[in-house]
Amino acid sequence: MQLQYRQFVAERDWEQFHNPKNLVMALAGEVGELTEIFQWLTQEESAAAMGDEGRAGQIRDELADVFAYLIRLADVLDVDLERAFAEKMVKNARKYPVETAKSSAAKHTDLPS
Amino acid sequence: MQLQYRQFVAERDWEQFHNPKNLVMALAGEVGELTEIFQWLTQEESAAAMGDEGRAGQIRDELADVFAYLIRLADVLDVDLERAFAEKMVKNARKYPVETAKSSAAKHTDLPS
Amino acid sequence: MQLQYRQFVAERDWEQFHNPKNLVMALAGEVGELTEIFQWLTQEESAAAMGDEGRAGQIRDELADVFAYLIRLADVLDVDLERAFAEKMVKNARKYPVETAKSSAAKHTDLPS
Amino acid sequence: MQLQYRQFVAERDWEQFHNPKNLVMALAGEVGELTEIFQWLTQEESAAAMGDEGRAGQIRDELADVFAYLIRLADVLDVDLERAFAEKMVKNARKYPVETAKSSAAKHTDLPS
Repeated sequence: MQLQYRQFVAERDWEQFHNPKNLVMALAGEVGELTEIFQWLTQEESAAAMGDEGRAGQIRDELADVFAYLIRLADVLDVDLERAFAEKMVKNARKYPVETAKSSAAKHTDLPS
Repeated sequence: MQLQYRQFVAERDWEQFHNPKNLVMALAGEVGELTEIFQWLTQEESAAAMGDEGRAGQIRDELADVFAYLIRLADVLDVDLERAFAEKMVKNARKYPVETAKSSAAKHTDLPS
Repeated sequence: MQLQYRQFVAERDWEQFHNPKNLVMALAGEVGELTEIFQWLTQEESAAAMGDEGRAGQIRDELADVFAYLIRLADVLDVDLERAFAEKMVKNARKYPVETAKSSAAKHTDLPS
Repeated sequence: MQLQYRQFVAERDWEQFHNPKNLVMALAGEVGELTEIFQWLTQEESAAAMGDEGRAGQIRDELADVFAYLIRLADVLDVDLERAFAEKMVKNARKYPVETAKSSAAKHTDLPS
């Protein structure tokens, strides 16, 4: 996917705009659009959001946009996303041991995110 | 990765917090942390950001956090991220034909993002 | 407040970092921190968030940070925030007439935000 | 302004949607729209953004939207924004003493934001 998007960008001469700072902003902008879809929904309504076909299409599109800019940002920064994910999961497992994290689930908001 | 993260969440009894609305906010929060790393950098400095080992580690961690919540959100919504990406690329290719997008590169900001 | 913050920035020689692009990112970063405080709360819990003195202090601090960067951004762009607000309220009143907006409250999510 | 917006919301029966969690998301969504305006601009272009009348109108509208949701959020949380700002400025002055902050301007990104 990185290669596909890289080519898409190259064909349009858009590399000049794709520095990390700009791409972080583009990523934030797309997450903002995703946020707008969910902002007035209750948590229960949000769980049923894919039941409405129109909204489901919107959500899929926004998730794809977020994913696309994330992939592109990682590409430009030369970061291997899957490896970074794997390494972060190891850290997270240490940071939130099952016993502690479970027992303090009631105070989940006090856990660093 | 979806399965790995799903298990991580299940072991900690965190499913109760992982509805789409909450996960969209968690995703936005992580993108906010990524934004803070780049906010005072020039575009040139942002392009060299991985050259500093401390900062490179921070960036990898934040990218991983964003990726993790994106994967989890897609999992909870039952969206196939790679397929959504592929479908969006087809739409984007139609929306930004090489000729037009290229010739209007100077007015790139007028193009819908 | 604009003048107070302007002086604070000038004394620290920070004008060089305070261009609109950077300040928009700083604003987004602070909103991200605010989002993190509320991400795992239910809507009911969020309504009671100020009841906890520790959290109330955090929320006040984050609201202040968001406000500070918004004021600073408006100052740098030479926008009169109160006037922009007044003009937008006139537009909004036209965009969401009481009758329509009220009757479609059930479908509030279809209203443009 | 708080009273004006409060009445606007009451007339439309929108209080039901205006809990803090939802309003934080609405605020984040509007900041996302502001971010999109600036994402592909250089820092120099961003400083000249108000020179284009069409874009200037967009920026004023988005700043007003951000301001409106910030005011509304503070109102719902019963936070006095101006007082929170004043108190934060005192904290910031302590956190960033003129001498230190000034001398480390080159390493501004290492300062906590």
